[in-house]
Amino acid sequence: MSPFRASPGFTDEWKHFDLSVTDGVATVTLNRPDKLNALTFEVYADLRDLLAELPHRGDARVVVLTGEGRGFCSGGDVEEIIGELQKMAPAQLLEFTRMTGAVVKALRECPLPVIAAVNGIAAGAGSVIALASDFRLLAESASFAFLFTKVGLAGADMGSAYLLPRLVGLGRATELLILGDKVAAPHADRIGLATKVVPDAALAEEASTLARRLADGPALAYSTTKVLLTRELDMDLGSSIELEAMTQALLMKSDDHAEFYAAWSAGRRPQWTGR
Amino acid sequence: MSPFRASPGFTDEWKHFDLSVTDGVATVTLNRPDKLNALTFEVYADLRDLLAELPHRGDARVVVLTGEGRGFCSGGDVEEIIGELQKMAPAQLLEFTRMTGAVVKALRECPLPVIAAVNGIAAGAGSVIALASDFRLLAESASFAFLFTKVGLAGADMGSAYLLPRLVGLGRATELLILGDKVAAPHADRIGLATKVVPDAALAEEASTLARRLADGPALAYSTTKVLLTRELDMDLGSSIELEAMTQALLMKSDDHAEFYAAWSAGRRPQWTGR
Amino acid sequence: MSPFRASPGFTDEWKHFDLSVTDGVATVTLNRPDKLNALTFEVYADLRDLLAELPHRGDARVVVLTGEGRGFCSGGDVEEIIGELQKMAPAQLLEFTRMTGAVVKALRECPLPVIAAVNGIAAGAGSVIALASDFRLLAESASFAFLFTKVGLAGADMGSAYLLPRLVGLGRATELLILGDKVAAPHADRIGLATKVVPDAALAEEASTLARRLADGPALAYSTTKVLLTRELDMDLGSSIELEAMTQALLMKSDDHAEFYAAWSAGRRPQWTGR
Repeated sequence: MSPFRASPGFTDEWKHFDLSVTDGVATVTLNRPDKLNALTFEVYADLRDLLAELPHRGDARVVVLTGEGRGFCSGGDVEEIIGELQKMAPAQLLEFTRMTGAVVKALRECPLPVIAAVNGIAAGAGSVIALASDFRLLAESASFAFLFTKVGLAGADMGSAYLLPRLVGLGRATELLILGDKVAAPHADRIGLATKVVPDAALAEEASTLARRLADGPALAYSTTKVLLTRELDMDLGSSIELEAMTQALLMKSDDHAEFYAAWSAGRRPQWTGR
Repeated sequence: MSPFRASPGFTDEWKHFDLSVTDGVATVTLNRPDKLNALTFEVYADLRDLLAELPHRGDARVVVLTGEGRGFCSGGDVEEIIGELQKMAPAQLLEFTRMTGAVVKALRECPLPVIAAVNGIAAGAGSVIALASDFRLLAESASFAFLFTKVGLAGADMGSAYLLPRLVGLGRATELLILGDKVAAPHADRIGLATKVVPDAALAEEASTLARRLADGPALAYSTTKVLLTRELDMDLGSSIELEAMTQALLMKSDDHAEFYAAWSAGRRPQWTGR
Repeated sequence: MSPFRASPGFTDEWKHFDLSVTDGVATVTLNRPDKLNALTFEVYADLRDLLAELPHRGDARVVVLTGEGRGFCSGGDVEEIIGELQKMAPAQLLEFTRMTGAVVKALRECPLPVIAAVNGIAAGAGSVIALASDFRLLAESASFAFLFTKVGLAGADMGSAYLLPRLVGLGRATELLILGDKVAAPHADRIGLATKVVPDAALAEEASTLARRLADGPALAYSTTKVLLTRELDMDLGSSIELEAMTQALLMKSDDHAEFYAAWSAGRRPQWTGR
């Protein structure tokens, strides 16, 4: 547990998705399979708040996001979200859109690596949640659909117009966000939107293997790499090099780096502690 | 027509390319086919000014750029432009290079999506005009050539050294801009420089189908997506998410979003008005 | 020689790699083949200082980096560098990491194009040195490995977390930097990390041909293209277009641009002087 918690306790029960934390791996499973895991207001809120709490708990070194059933996440529920939005005033709408953006901000700023195990369709907000993760393992039958314009909204949602060009280039991002068409897994792989595509039946195992590797490895090294990747998208060359110099000097004082050298000298494998 | 025009009228006749505006689609056809549509000073000026006027007219929701004959646009005419530049003083040269850059700025900042239907060679300034468009449909026999260094000039021209790395990555952009060699359509496709490559005979039809789709769809959604893609290349993560939250809250109050929900509830297709 | 040198002389002998400068091509060959050209403190320092001096000498218009023997560069030597780092205090560690970052900064800011002829494994710091070059010619058997996390350090080293996403996109960069696994040449080619992959036996010849072309061509045009590519990664659209307008107006007054026009008018090939 983080030494820097004061008054707030940790949440006892997350009611709007399944959460398990086992051996350093936190797994969030969206659990409305009959709706392809469409999001409700409460799921967004819980995701935002979980991502703030989780790094403080100290029992998780990696996060896995996945969906129950055939879909990964079909985005905001048409009835429970879009229907409700029709009745809202601007101030409320802005509270909602800021909350959805806060989920993406939390995913990018979370110091733990996040794996999206995309088991089926990732549409609308679901596609941006996968986009904001660090690793995207896709089942062969999975797909993306940044379908915002198909409901009359901007293809720029929850940071998609910031993130997607930085993954697949401006040309392809323009096509995907303006048209909102489905992107099948092999195409996602070709353009850099998928980390890896695997047979449907192998997805859970692949996600688990990658999570295991990240949880058992040098966690501070992984964590700082992710955090600097996030930050340096917004930094210039000189500042980035200075930030990396500072970071690396700090990590040269870490237990894990000393352990690497000790292990190498002794001809054995390192035992990482993440410190 | 935009409610926010005051004294200036609209230009009656564009003398340096063909312009048609039909059913929401503005088509600009470069029309010096015997010169592969090489640019003159006047074509640049007219492109710059058309792109400023067009969004105010209110009769166009998408722009198509294409070339008559075998070429798309072979860039600045060697005799009519390069020859003249030899005689100019620095202040005049700068007026010229600023004008060419203004065309690219106008393309990127234009609130309408722009389709380049690249029917043949896009060279020099022609390649940057296609690069600055939102969609690049390429005929199989079309190609790019960022050939500036071959005339002794910087490969960084009209924003090419800003745009190209953001489409194809720094490594490939370095190769294309420093060497200036021809890029055939299939390679452009592979690296993310083409939206789609189609048989030569199908290009006009493909461009027309895409333009039709964009003109008939939710125009405000398309337009804001494009504008945010342009702006967020220059913004940080947090600011981008805030801009998208504001934009999306606004669009949740749009007629088209309400129409989507009404159509969905009634089990019919939405009738977009672009408002 | 640059007219803008005052007191410092040029270094007579570079002791920690081989340097030759012939017909405008400076070739740096890392020469510890028995260690796969692992870096020592002295190699970093000499690379940093050579890259500062070389553009002032006036006898080089292009730089080639390569390795002797089976490897390109296996990164920091485990004994001679990592072993020594164990004993250092924070201030010294920071001096070291700043020096390594300064090599990358010098590569990116060097006004000469840099070709990495990657003849074998490019690992750790070796992979970042190749990454920071302008062209990466890879032997078929060559590979990259951003293996920092495997020694317990951040994958963000010497600017890698700034540069790699700008070449291959954030998704692929995250995978390569967090996991640190080997990237074979064909995969590097597919994702934009290689300029070209060639048979092992052809690498030296290919590098020499490209270097020849760059050294014999319009050097100011090449140089300004590289410098603007570096700078515009950190600039916004409007400023980039203005910088390109200024640069191009200057180059329109260059000897090489006038030579192009004279040669074209006379129907002969241009004779570039690089001025």
